[in-house]
Amino acid sequence: SGFVLVKNPHLDLMEEDILYHLDLGTKTHNLPAMFGDIKFVCVGGSPNRMRAFAQFMRRELGLAGDGEDVADVCAGSDRYAMYRAGPVLSISHGMGIPSISIMLHEVIKLLHHAKCRDVTIIRIGTSGGLGIEAGSVVITDTAVDSSFQPRFEQVVLDDVVVRSTELDKDLAEELLTCSRDILDFPTLIGHTMCTYDFYEGQGRLDGALCSFSSEKKLEYLRRAYDAGVRNIEMESTAFAALCGLCGLKGESCRFHL
Amino acid sequence: SGFVLVKNPHLDLMEEDILYHLDLGTKTHNLPAMFGDIKFVCVGGSPNRMRAFAQFMRRELGLAGDGEDVADVCAGSDRYAMYRAGPVLSISHGMGIPSISIMLHEVIKLLHHAKCRDVTIIRIGTSGGLGIEAGSVVITDTAVDSSFQPRFEQVVLDDVVVRSTELDKDLAEELLTCSRDILDFPTLIGHTMCTYDFYEGQGRLDGALCSFSSEKKLEYLRRAYDAGVRNIEMESTAFAALCGLCGLKGESCRFHL
Repeated sequence: SGFVLVKNPHLDLMEEDILYHLDLGTKTHNLPAMFGDIKFVCVGGSPNRMRAFAQFMRRELGLAGDGEDVADVCAGSDRYAMYRAGPVLSISHGMGIPSISIMLHEVIKLLHHAKCRDVTIIRIGTSGGLGIEAGSVVITDTAVDSSFQPRFEQVVLDDVVVRSTELDKDLAEELLTCSRDILDFPTLIGHTMCTYDFYEGQGRLDGALCSFSSEKKLEYLRRAYDAGVRNIEMESTAFAALCGLCGLKGESCRFHL
Repeated sequence: SGFVLVKNPHLDLMEEDILYHLDLGTKTHNLPAMFGDIKFVCVGGSPNRMRAFAQFMRRELGLAGDGEDVADVCAGSDRYAMYRAGPVLSISHGMGIPSISIMLHEVIKLLHHAKCRDVTIIRIGTSGGLGIEAGSVVITDTAVDSSFQPRFEQVVLDDVVVRSTELDKDLAEELLTCSRDILDFPTLIGHTMCTYDFYEGQGRLDGALCSFSSEKKLEYLRRAYDAGVRNIEMESTAFAALCGLCGLKGESCRFHL
């Protein structure tokens, strides 16, 4: 049917669903009227960048004059920022798996309540590249963990559930085809490694703590490259797992600074 | 000596240290002049709340007239917000362990470069209470993981290192003594459970996914209570581990909504 799925039998029994971190709710807002026509959800870490992206999309879609501002739909909350550009929703998710997970749970419920159909969700932003040219864009085929495994370990109460982290291969190919029209941005498809930590977890030598040598770091990154990893960031495994379970066609495209 | 410690031999060899997510650096800013007198660092999830807290502290310390605004020291970055109130620094950390870890690595280096001494760091904010009255404040003695163990598992490259999550017991007692002067806020010392997920990890029945029954949720929370847990949030184990390793006297005080 193309609807966004929620997999929670308790939701049907609730009189009201408050999307707390988005400052939205089923009783306070007419979600189908506000969001029913959404077809694309683009998410990224930084609120300023997602605002700039919404402004860019509005110009591209011929929806706005120059200099016109876009309003933050979640202005009542400072946890996330959300902007509309026609059928495109642009939302910030902060940094790391816990932060993007809270946002995705609430956005998935939002799309479900709004009865949206055939929604594509794309994560955009920056990441650290691995053995690729600076300025490259990596489209993720599979998100892997710090052991290069295609899995996301979700703690449910005190059980660990292992979830798949494959993304939509057709969408990846479609995005790669689009990229061929844009010069100056070398684009490739590869694995994306997702870590829980920016410094010790990604082999950085400039954190407050660092117990490994430069050689050990390079050896680890070489093993990651040999396993097919082309970029490193902090959200992709949770993103892939949640989108996959809830029927959202999902992809991640990251620009290597 | 009371200095804030960094445990990274590579830092001494670096010509410049860029605290990227704070938009500060050792070459672009005179960190000892800007921050050398800092004695307290208060951190919390929401940027708006940390701004309001800095304004409150400025009034309490007689540093500001009514309505005067405080400037965001990290205005060039939208990842975190930082405000000064005399010897108090008020900083937002976003949601979850990865987000607070990036901030703490960079703030610890900031305090180290600024040659600050005898710094106390206190995490403030809200949390979910467990078997306690709404409006209570929980001062954490030990942060525990989702299996109620006092440990933080840090992935360093692809190794897992287990770190201690005890907080400063004397500081906890001192804060408890202070709380006796404030009526209307029942305050207690207890364990704080830290999870990687807000919905499935904390037993919420209203996420986009929920595979457990209300009974199973209650049974889990009862076991947590029996293990000494009095509140649940998403940052305390990483906070306790990093503060402990870097010589910061740390505490976490959370208000149960």
